[in-house]
Amino acid sequence: MSGEETITLGRYLFERLNQKPIGIKNVFGVPGDFNLVLLDKIQEVEGMNWVGNVNELNAGYAADGYSRVKNAFSADGSSIGCLVTTFGVGELSAVNAIAGAYSEHVGLLHVVGIPSTESQKKELLLHHTLGNGDFTVFHKISSLISVTTSALNDLANATAEIDRVIESAFINQRPTYLAFPSNFFDKKVPRSKLDKPLNLSPPPNNHEVQEEVLNEILSMISKAKDPVIIIDACCSRHNSTFEANKLIQLTNFKFAVTPMAKGSRDIDENDPKYVGVYLGDLSYPKSKELVEQSDLVLSLGAVLSDFNTGAFSYALPTSRVVEFHSDYTKIRNAQYPGIRMKELLQKLLESAKLKELVANNKPRDTTPLDLIQPIKLPDDHKITQAWLWSNLSSWLREGDVVVTETGTSSFGIVQTKYPKNVIGISQVLWGSIGYSVGAASGAVIAAEELDPSRRVILFVGDGSLQLTVQEISTMARHHNNTYIFVLNNSGFTIEKLIHGREAGYNNIQEWEYTDILKTFKSTNYEAFTVGNVGELSKLFKDEAFAKNDKIKLVEVKLDTFDAPENLIKQAEISSKTNDD
Amino acid sequence: MSGEETITLGRYLFERLNQKPIGIKNVFGVPGDFNLVLLDKIQEVEGMNWVGNVNELNAGYAADGYSRVKNAFSADGSSIGCLVTTFGVGELSAVNAIAGAYSEHVGLLHVVGIPSTESQKKELLLHHTLGNGDFTVFHKISSLISVTTSALNDLANATAEIDRVIESAFINQRPTYLAFPSNFFDKKVPRSKLDKPLNLSPPPNNHEVQEEVLNEILSMISKAKDPVIIIDACCSRHNSTFEANKLIQLTNFKFAVTPMAKGSRDIDENDPKYVGVYLGDLSYPKSKELVEQSDLVLSLGAVLSDFNTGAFSYALPTSRVVEFHSDYTKIRNAQYPGIRMKELLQKLLESAKLKELVANNKPRDTTPLDLIQPIKLPDDHKITQAWLWSNLSSWLREGDVVVTETGTSSFGIVQTKYPKNVIGISQVLWGSIGYSVGAASGAVIAAEELDPSRRVILFVGDGSLQLTVQEISTMARHHNNTYIFVLNNSGFTIEKLIHGREAGYNNIQEWEYTDILKTFKSTNYEAFTVGNVGELSKLFKDEAFAKNDKIKLVEVKLDTFDAPENLIKQAEISSKTNDD
Repeated sequence: MSGEETITLGRYLFERLNQKPIGIKNVFGVPGDFNLVLLDKIQEVEGMNWVGNVNELNAGYAADGYSRVKNAFSADGSSIGCLVTTFGVGELSAVNAIAGAYSEHVGLLHVVGIPSTESQKKELLLHHTLGNGDFTVFHKISSLISVTTSALNDLANATAEIDRVIESAFINQRPTYLAFPSNFFDKKVPRSKLDKPLNLSPPPNNHEVQEEVLNEILSMISKAKDPVIIIDACCSRHNSTFEANKLIQLTNFKFAVTPMAKGSRDIDENDPKYVGVYLGDLSYPKSKELVEQSDLVLSLGAVLSDFNTGAFSYALPTSRVVEFHSDYTKIRNAQYPGIRMKELLQKLLESAKLKELVANNKPRDTTPLDLIQPIKLPDDHKITQAWLWSNLSSWLREGDVVVTETGTSSFGIVQTKYPKNVIGISQVLWGSIGYSVGAASGAVIAAEELDPSRRVILFVGDGSLQLTVQEISTMARHHNNTYIFVLNNSGFTIEKLIHGREAGYNNIQEWEYTDILKTFKSTNYEAFTVGNVGELSKLFKDEAFAKNDKIKLVEVKLDTFDAPENLIKQAEISSKTNDD
Repeated sequence: MSGEETITLGRYLFERLNQKPIGIKNVFGVPGDFNLVLLDKIQEVEGMNWVGNVNELNAGYAADGYSRVKNAFSADGSSIGCLVTTFGVGELSAVNAIAGAYSEHVGLLHVVGIPSTESQKKELLLHHTLGNGDFTVFHKISSLISVTTSALNDLANATAEIDRVIESAFINQRPTYLAFPSNFFDKKVPRSKLDKPLNLSPPPNNHEVQEEVLNEILSMISKAKDPVIIIDACCSRHNSTFEANKLIQLTNFKFAVTPMAKGSRDIDENDPKYVGVYLGDLSYPKSKELVEQSDLVLSLGAVLSDFNTGAFSYALPTSRVVEFHSDYTKIRNAQYPGIRMKELLQKLLESAKLKELVANNKPRDTTPLDLIQPIKLPDDHKITQAWLWSNLSSWLREGDVVVTETGTSSFGIVQTKYPKNVIGISQVLWGSIGYSVGAASGAVIAAEELDPSRRVILFVGDGSLQLTVQEISTMARHHNNTYIFVLNNSGFTIEKLIHGREAGYNNIQEWEYTDILKTFKSTNYEAFTVGNVGELSKLFKDEAFAKNDKIKLVEVKLDTFDAPENLIKQAEISSKTNDD
């Protein structure tokens, strides 16, 4: 490589991740002896930092939360997250988080520092192995929960392989995996390879098929009297909310969101055309009625899982439904593989025929539906779930990021009205408890990259918090000013509602939650305990509390069996399904 | 099943696990909606308890620690551990712990509550799935790190399958996996099936092959002038230490242990024939000399990993070595598959020829080697690693369980002399940091089952503790009186020695370690901070401190770059190997 400027292969990886539009500035993970030299390369890239999480599961959750916030707020529309772990012990601890990102369509790259290609060839009985000389097992495990993987073993194609796993994570918005041998970190490659941009565009839709699909959709629109647009998770994950909103405004169609899509970029609950969260029988009656009376459903990015559909209680006849997906389209029962949502929406918006059809459409109504009315309770009344979620609306403000844990929080938040541009994060499909704490720790880092005044607000139950509590230490270490609402209802309320109401296994050790930040030696925090309505109302009205200038932990004492109504119904159904 | 007494299939599982010799009394895990009904069955079994860990990784580590202690102390010789998790999210969080048990030969059964067979057939898009209707992915992942697995789907063979996975975990002392559909928990099976004992015996050795092996070994013994026996991990894991010690006492051969076997049942470091811990070039010079001068090496249960062999620096010519393994024997380069250690040792001990050969053997010496001399330092001197490990010997007492974390603790403990019948627990091969906290939480439960006066003593670095800290809450909840020595050297010292001595990524957030038990609302604990020799010496001399009547957490302040000498050497070698 004489005369040519070179960089190390390790640095190449991080330069690529830092390039726009991906623009990663913070890398998550835990150091380990097979990745240490790789970590040196992060700080060589201008403006790039190593976060250093407390354990690998939390690092995976954090990279997931980071990816979601960057996707939601970055000017370029899409991004991914990145975590670095070490061979065997480190990567396996992150497996649950990676599977969650796969399940929920979150783009991230999992980089694993592995033993040198020499050690692998010799089948050395190294620590962090299964002791059988098989160095491929962990790669096999990750391949089952990743959209693609690569184990570098040849310098000739190493940069191409790095590009490929990054591009795939970005385009598919799913996890990819890169096994990076320790003797490759310092191998030299031409710097000029960075000049060729990554190929981050999905393949174009087939023109002929797309025309057929467009004509069919336009024909259905022309015949429909009362269409509805349903925004679901993959619409925002695959960066199509801009087009979705344009479609809403152009057509004046009413629209709903699903629980997984509540708090999506560009989608405004305050729009008069908004008819609420649709989840079948567990919807507000008015929302259910308005959605189900429609004679045409344009479904954008649907993920039809149990918790996202009111336990499969959708009442939308297939004959009326067009499903736009990230990699196919479905009209009634006809599937069109490879006809991707974003391009199809763009073509639909450009269509002169559509403009003509909707030219005289008026919005359904000029005033927003008042689905959510703050419940009123006297100041000395114990805080209830119903009061909390409905009154939270008044405290939230434009641009907030709201992270809710699986359980009373993810069900309760459906009863909160979001101001414009609020981003919601939750694992409605994967539902791994403890996720929200790690996700919040990544989300707050992404939010601070983009705009430090943006608030990240976490709602987590006491039971779930305990699984991943140490990630609050990462927030303390980096002075990330998260709001942490600990909903203390003395154990696993969601499980108690499903089965074992009084069983010991649904109880936990009670902690002194307000002491956590002191124990983690945060130098800039406040901790509060609130039990009655007056105490929390006072905080919600306090201007100083509203400013995210330190970590603020609020322990909210709640009754054990108090839960949002939709959760109570879902729990009854789950319990029955398990026995069938 | 008219006229026949029946029990539920869920209860059948736990009754089997509770039967002697397995005798499990405590089951680890975390509740989840697909396992709740199964957890009800645990308390139906007399004397059986659900522990309820704080997260699944910790539950896996705890089941591993429990298994090791039960194996070491129970009258029946062997046992296994059991953990119960929930589909997808729960089981994947435990994967690292299961892989560790596979790597380190620890017997445990991982039971996973999964969706009903009906839901599986319909490929429902349930929460906790990857959202693609594939219910087999997680089973596939576990099959890569388990010795065998089973997913129940037919009542006709369900009890046989349950028996098979239990038997396999026990015989192979490795993890097995059982996926238990939620609609099978309450299926009825005849109670009489419990009357047929489990088959817990490994297959017998082939008589003819064994005779050939025995003759060859006896011939080698007859020619040897200075044999040595090396006890390694699989000797205790496969319940052969009783035979090993009988062989030592019968032959009067000198013997050594490896780091992984330090603290094995029946093996006494105070025996005059004991020549120390053998790990190649990283051994004490006298131990190295005594082992390597031998003209015959009887190696029992060897696990020849890097950290267990002084980075592969064994100097034992194959021509002199007989390796006894759990499933084969190797004489020089000849392998004898299926000739298992335990039966072979029994036959060797019964051999009249052996008795004749060794009749006149005298032990090497009558006084124990004084390999480990407590280092003396003035009371106001800062505590050093060298002082700590050598002086710890005086505080330990017969029957203690000593759990050491990968890092300065697992290397340092080689410099501690164990009293008789002390059991050592560490992950020398797998080396997952944070393991020791979970393992200690399981170990102390096993120890209390067997003899509540038995002390469980944990040594963990500050960096490692943070990964799994919440398991201390389980100890607090169940009033398990563990000693927790937190070696606070301000970050990942082992990593700093390998690479990145001053790098930010090897640092962590400093915590107020002595506040942890207060935050977890332990009602019976003491916390201490010691920085100089006098302070720790005083504790070591304090009779009240020596009694395990509450949880005792001792923060030991140490210099960041102070480390046991064998670790410093190993780190240099690791760093070089990574670059090759």
